[in-house]
Amino acid sequence: MKDLTLVRSNERVDDLERNGYLLIQNPEVFCFGIDAILLAHFAKISSDKQKVLDIGTGTGIIPIVMHANYQKGNYTGIDIQEEMVEMANRSVKLNGIEGSVRMLHVDIRNYKDYFKSCEFDIITTNPPYMKGDIGLKNEHPSKNLARHEIACTLEDIINASSDMLKYSGKLCMIHRPLRLVEILMTMKKYNLEPKRLRFIHPKKNREPNMVLIEAVKNAKPEMRVQPPLIVYNEDGSYTDEIYEIYGKEKKE
Amino acid sequence: MKDLTLVRSNERVDDLERNGYLLIQNPEVFCFGIDAILLAHFAKISSDKQKVLDIGTGTGIIPIVMHANYQKGNYTGIDIQEEMVEMANRSVKLNGIEGSVRMLHVDIRNYKDYFKSCEFDIITTNPPYMKGDIGLKNEHPSKNLARHEIACTLEDIINASSDMLKYSGKLCMIHRPLRLVEILMTMKKYNLEPKRLRFIHPKKNREPNMVLIEAVKNAKPEMRVQPPLIVYNEDGSYTDEIYEIYGKEKKE
Repeated sequence: MKDLTLVRSNERVDDLERNGYLLIQNPEVFCFGIDAILLAHFAKISSDKQKVLDIGTGTGIIPIVMHANYQKGNYTGIDIQEEMVEMANRSVKLNGIEGSVRMLHVDIRNYKDYFKSCEFDIITTNPPYMKGDIGLKNEHPSKNLARHEIACTLEDIINASSDMLKYSGKLCMIHRPLRLVEILMTMKKYNLEPKRLRFIHPKKNREPNMVLIEAVKNAKPEMRVQPPLIVYNEDGSYTDEIYEIYGKEKKE
Repeated sequence: MKDLTLVRSNERVDDLERNGYLLIQNPEVFCFGIDAILLAHFAKISSDKQKVLDIGTGTGIIPIVMHANYQKGNYTGIDIQEEMVEMANRSVKLNGIEGSVRMLHVDIRNYKDYFKSCEFDIITTNPPYMKGDIGLKNEHPSKNLARHEIACTLEDIINASSDMLKYSGKLCMIHRPLRLVEILMTMKKYNLEPKRLRFIHPKKNREPNMVLIEAVKNAKPEMRVQPPLIVYNEDGSYTDEIYEIYGKEKKE
C-alpha cells in the first residue's frame, strides 16, 4: 500500500505506469514533460552497482523512472530548489525506494562540497534550454529556473559532470538542436567525447525539436547518430516507439 | 546536337535527366554516387552572379548538376587529378556550358596560387571520407584518392574554404556522420559557423550513413537540423523525395 498522506493538498500524484511507481507533482510549479521520459529511456544502465547522478532533477522524475525501468542502480538527484528536493524525496518514500534513490539540495556550482571526482558512472541532465534570461517570462520563479540558465550555465553542468564522472563514464543530456554545436564543443573542451546522438522529431517530415546526446569521458572520437525518433504519426496519434518508451499498451 | 566525338572509347556518357545534360565517366576509374547528387541539391544558389567552387570535383558532377538544376551561377571545379579535370572539361564542352563552368587542375594545398581570399559565394565539397590511409585498398589510385585523405586532409579543405569564401559565404559538404564532431569543430576553428544539417538515412528506421552540412562564414551560432532524408521505402523503392531530387518521374 502506498502512503498517500505523503501528498499535500496542492499536489497531485501521477501513475508512471511502470511497476506501479507514482510521482508527486505540484502543477502550479512545474510538471515533467516528454523530454524527461525520453532521457530516462536513452540513458541505459547495465549493472546494479552503477551510480547515477541527475543534475537539476526537479520532481525527481528521471531517477525515479530509471529505477522503475531498470529495477537496478543507485541514484542521486540534485536540485537547487529546496522545496522541489523535499517533494522529490516524498516521491521516493511513496515508492519505498529510499535504499536506491536519494534527492539532495545541491547547487551544482558547489558540487565539490558534496561529491568526489570520478564518483559516478552515469550523469543525466535535462537542463534549462534557454540561454541566460533571453525571453524570460514573469512566471513562477521555479518555472524560470527550470527553463532558463539563471542558476547555472550549460558549461557549469558539463564541467562539473566531467569531473564527477569515472573514466569511461557517460553524460546523457537532452537539449535543443539549435544549441547542438555549442554543446558538442563544450563537451569536447571538458574531455567528454560525444559518442551517440538521437534527434526527436514531432513528425517524420518535421525538424527535430529535441536532441539526445551521450558523451563518454576519455573516449576516442567517432560518433554514432541513431535513427530519428518520431513522436507523432501523421494522424496525430503516438508512434509505436513512443508507446513502447512510455511503457503503455497501444490503443487499437 | 551533342558532339559525341568528345567521348573516348573507354568512357561512357550518362544522361543526367535534367534539361538534356550529359556527363562523361570512366567506369574503370570512378563514377559519381548519390552523395554528389544530394549535395548539388542541398547547396542552393540564388543569383546568376554567384561564384561557386567545387573542391575535388572528379567527373565535375556537382558543378554540372548545379548548373543543370539552377540554370544560373558561375562554377569552378578543381581536382588534383589532371586526367579527371581533362575529362570533366570535355563534359563541360559536351553540354556547351563553357561560359559558366570551368574545370581546373589544382592541388587544394596550393589554392593561393589560383584564387584570392573572399572570392567565392559558395564552396561545395564531397571530400574523401576515410582518414589518412586507414583501410586503404590496393585499387585504382584514382579511387584511393577520391576515398582516402591522401592528397589533403579535411582541415586543409576547411581552412582553404574559409579563406576563399566571401563574408557570409557558404561551405556545403557531404560526409560521414561518424566524423561529424570533428567536422563541426574544424569549421568553428576556421570561423565557419555550422548553420544547417541534414542526415541521410538509407531507410527510416536505420542510422544515417551520410550527413549534409552547411556552414556560413562569420555567422552567429545556432544551427538548424532539417527533417531526415530517407532514401528507400520499406519495399526497397526510392522515396518520393529522392525521385524529386533526381528529377525523375515516379514510376507508378
